[in-house]
Order: sequence, then structure tokens, then C-alpha cells
Amino acid sequence: MKVGYIGLGIMGKPMAKNILKGGFSLVVYNRSQAAVEELVHAGALRASSPQEVAEQVDVIFTNLPDSPDVEKVVLQEHGILAGAHTGLIYVDNSTIKPMVARQLAALLAEKGVMSLDAPVSGGEIGAINGTLSIMVGGPQAALERVRPILNTIGKTITHVGESGAGQIAKAANQIMVAAQMVAMAELLIFAQQAGADPQKVIQAIQKGAAQCWTLDNKPQRLFDGNRTPGFKAGLQAKDLNIIMESSREFGVPLPLTAITTQLYQAMLQNGMQDLDNSAVIGIIERLANTTLSIAVDTTHRN
Amino acid sequence: MKVGYIGLGIMGKPMAKNILKGGFSLVVYNRSQAAVEELVHAGALRASSPQEVAEQVDVIFTNLPDSPDVEKVVLQEHGILAGAHTGLIYVDNSTIKPMVARQLAALLAEKGVMSLDAPVSGGEIGAINGTLSIMVGGPQAALERVRPILNTIGKTITHVGESGAGQIAKAANQIMVAAQMVAMAELLIFAQQAGADPQKVIQAIQKGAAQCWTLDNKPQRLFDGNRTPGFKAGLQAKDLNIIMESSREFGVPLPLTAITTQLYQAMLQNGMQDLDNSAVIGIIERLANTTLSIAVDTTHRN
Repeated sequence: MKVGYIGLGIMGKPMAKNILKGGFSLVVYNRSQAAVEELVHAGALRASSPQEVAEQVDVIFTNLPDSPDVEKVVLQEHGILAGAHTGLIYVDNSTIKPMVARQLAALLAEKGVMSLDAPVSGGEIGAINGTLSIMVGGPQAALERVRPILNTIGKTITHVGESGAGQIAKAANQIMVAAQMVAMAELLIFAQQAGADPQKVIQAIQKGAAQCWTLDNKPQRLFDGNRTPGFKAGLQAKDLNIIMESSREFGVPLPLTAITTQLYQAMLQNGMQDLDNSAVIGIIERLANTTLSIAVDTTHRN
Repeated sequence: MKVGYIGLGIMGKPMAKNILKGGFSLVVYNRSQAAVEELVHAGALRASSPQEVAEQVDVIFTNLPDSPDVEKVVLQEHGILAGAHTGLIYVDNSTIKPMVARQLAALLAEKGVMSLDAPVSGGEIGAINGTLSIMVGGPQAALERVRPILNTIGKTITHVGESGAGQIAKAANQIMVAAQMVAMAELLIFAQQAGADPQKVIQAIQKGAAQCWTLDNKPQRLFDGNRTPGFKAGLQAKDLNIIMESSREFGVPLPLTAITTQLYQAMLQNGMQDLDNSAVIGIIERLANTTLSIAVDTTHRN
């Protein structure tokens, strides 16, 4: 199978490399040429447009920042749709609006193309190590065709349902992750300002009903004064904006997610977009006019 | 050691029974006499006032609904303070405001009484089985004295810090639990209304960054149509109100917890106080004017 990959960013570049390492012949396209050179050096071919990629391959991937970027690469002159041919499978690893995923899938279906929305979670580390979780929406037959390729980039592949369902699962994931991040921020600042040791409080609660991946993994970074990503706050904000736009389209008011979205929006406003998503604690610190104390002795890790 | 227990409600009654089973001689006091009779039948002695309990015992426990109830039982005529004596240890298993815990501890200290705030988590089941988590604030020396008694009611005992720290940890716990419950409600209704199968969505996300005790344990109850407690929404609302009052006292704005508090407040307003705390999904259903579909085939559990 000949594979195409469009969008060689922080996530896309290592994912494309893993497909190449998996033994598939690869054609790439990217606006910035540095990443293209890197992939070509590793054995990929280059194309001059998304159309040219689509014309040459059996399976074409995209990995782009947001819904309008994906729409553009598919629909523009010399876009994927222009190079579409019967039997081509389109896999989008971007996180975009479920509604846009469905619309593009419908348009491509008219040209005999099956589409999968396949957003990922697991961050840059997961992309490099090929251990991403992949949430897939679209025809089961298409998934089975591309599964050998997905196995080179991800560890867990879940077929959630028809077109759009992968994006819906990613949205659901981000609703929960953002809630946990903000709740952690609030409880840490609350505990400190109320006069307790936040590290002791985390130890007291992290194995009970409050247990979560976030409390297992993020507090020690904050106690160490480490707010570098991880998963960037700017991307968390982007994903939350997708959810809030979708909540209007699907008629589902989301009061809690509205608040988490606004707090991540406040991070952008305060120049914190390149920090970790756990650094939303910086906004709670500003609200309370305080800062989380850095642990003096960081050898006692919880 | 002679032990006193005041407040034989849903939690207090089984906890008092476990202390008795642990071999401690027990004196009880409760407004409703049915629970007193049950404990007396099991071998406890009865007293006619909190003062009378305090006068007879080495360690006195309370387990009452809210801060004013605890203040009353300690401070009232014929209350605990009236019966206090040097060497008495006071242990409060109620969930109340950290500030009230500190104030009462200071008053009791003047009579030579050491106090521990020791709220619990783990619910009625944990109280019956003696497997509660106990978050303790107050002097280490007092904790070591009463630890043999606490071992009869709880499995995990964490000394969080000085007076009030146990209540602060419980508050932190409830900030996170409420956030997870509401986020779960929002993501389930969002997923359904967006056209995905909520059960598949949970499967896709529950082992990744969104992982939590809540997603591990609560969705199947909702898919089965089971909204019975568990942990009652009315108690969740009470605990959140404590947090919001405390947030003002300690000067920590909590925007996310403000929203979760209001959504649990909406449950009270809609007669849902005796449902499980996961039944906050009922409020999101009302906002979206829909209901979560009950799984047709409940044999396929996630």
C-alpha cells in the first residue's frame, strides 16, 4: 500500500516517520519544507500539492491544526478532492469538528473515497513512540484496510462508530481532561490558601473517588515548578473551542465545559499558550492573587 | 479506652457498630432513639446528652450533617464542651467547614481537649465494611492515641496536617469528584446528541488521559438506568456549599466549583437530592431537553 501524509507538524512528523519505519512507501506534503526534507532524507517522496499526493497513493492522511485547515487541504484547488480516485481511503488524524468530518466524508464519498476521522491522544511522546490512542469514526471496511498502517502509529485503536464518531470521542475526552485540570488547579490553590500542605492533600485524595490520571501524573510537575508541555494549553483551548461550537450545532448546553473553555481562553490572553495544560493553575493563581508554593524538598515525591 | 459516639445516621450508625465490634466500650447519643436502641442492643450504653457522653469517655466522636449541627452539639447547654475534661480527645467524622473545625478545636483546647477533624470518604458501603478513607487534621499525638479506634472504621488513614487539614482534604476531594461527575454528564449527553454511541465513547476514552474512578465506575449505572445512590446528590450539594463558603473565607475564587455547585443546587430544586451524585446528568438532560438512552442490551458491560 502506498501512503500519503499531509501535515508534518509536532504530531504529524513523527507519525509519518513511524509509517515509513513500518515499511510503507510514503509521499509527503507540507507547507514548511524543513519537515519535508527530513522525511525525504528518511526515504519518503515529496509531492507539490495535496492533489498530487492523492493521485499517487492508496491511503492519504492529514494532520492539521483545525477544521478550516482540513477543509482547505481537501477542497482547495489542487486539494485532495481534486486528486481523489475510486478506492482511495482518507484518514484525518487532526482534531476537528465532528460536523466538518462528516461533511468532508460525504463529499469524498461521491468520488468513491471512504473516509475515517481518526484523532489521536497521547501527545508528542506518544506520536514519537508510536503509542497513541486512535479514536476512529467511519466505515469498518476502511478501518480494516488501513489498520496495518494505524498499528505503526498507535497502540490502542477504537472504532467508535460512523463518520464523525472519532471526533466526538476526542471531544468527550477533552471535556473530561479539561475538567480534571481545572479542578486540580482549584483544589491545590484552595488547599494552600486554607492552610494545608497541597502535597499532603494530594496524597490523601488520589487513591479514592477523586482518583484520575491527572492527579496521578500532574501534581508533582507543579510542585517541582515545571509548567512546560506535555500537552500545550493552546491546543487544549483549540479543542475546547471545537467542543463549544459543536455544542451549539448539536443543541447541548455544556455549562462546565463553558467555564473550562473560558479559563483556557484566559491562558491565551495571558501569554500562557505554550505551557502545559496543567498550567491553567496560573489562571486560578491570578484570580486568588497568589502562587502555588514550589516544594522545597523535591526528593519526597508523591 | 472508653469511646463515645454522637450522631447515629446513615454513616455514624455503622461506624459506631464497628467501633463496638472492635472491642471498645461505647456510649452513644442520638436525637432519634431507634438508632440508639439498635446500638444498645448490640452492647453500647446510652447517655442523655452530649455532656453526659463527654464526662464518661476518653475519646468522643461526632458524625453530624453540617457545620451548625457540630457547633451546636459542642457548644450547647449540656454539650460536649460542658462535659469536657483534660485528656479527652474529640474526633469529628462530619464533613464541615475547615474554619469551624479550627474554632472548635481552639475552644476545646482551653479545657485540655485535643481535637481531630477526621472526615471520611467511601460512602455507606465503606462505613458498613469498615473500609473508609479517613482524612485527619490535628495533633499527631492525638491521632496516635485514637488510631486503634480509627482502624476499626477505616482502611486508609492519612494525617494531612494541623487542625482543619482533614476538612481541607475532604473539600479538595469533593472539588474533583463533582467536576468529574458533571464532566461525565456533559460528555455523555454531548456524545449522544452528536450521534455517537455513548457506551463506545466511554470505551474509547476511559483508559487514556481522561481515566478516572468516576469513568471506571459510574457510566454503566447510567446506561442501566440506575440513578439510586451510592453517594446522595443532596450530600454532594452540601459539601460543595461548604467549599464555596470556605472559598470566600480563604479568598480563593473557584469558577469551576461554582458551576458544579449550582448544578447540584439545580438537582435539589428538581427533587433529585436522594439520587446518586452521578444523576447530575439529569440536569444536563433538562438543559438539552433530552434523556440519555438506556442500553437495550445490558449484558455488554464496558
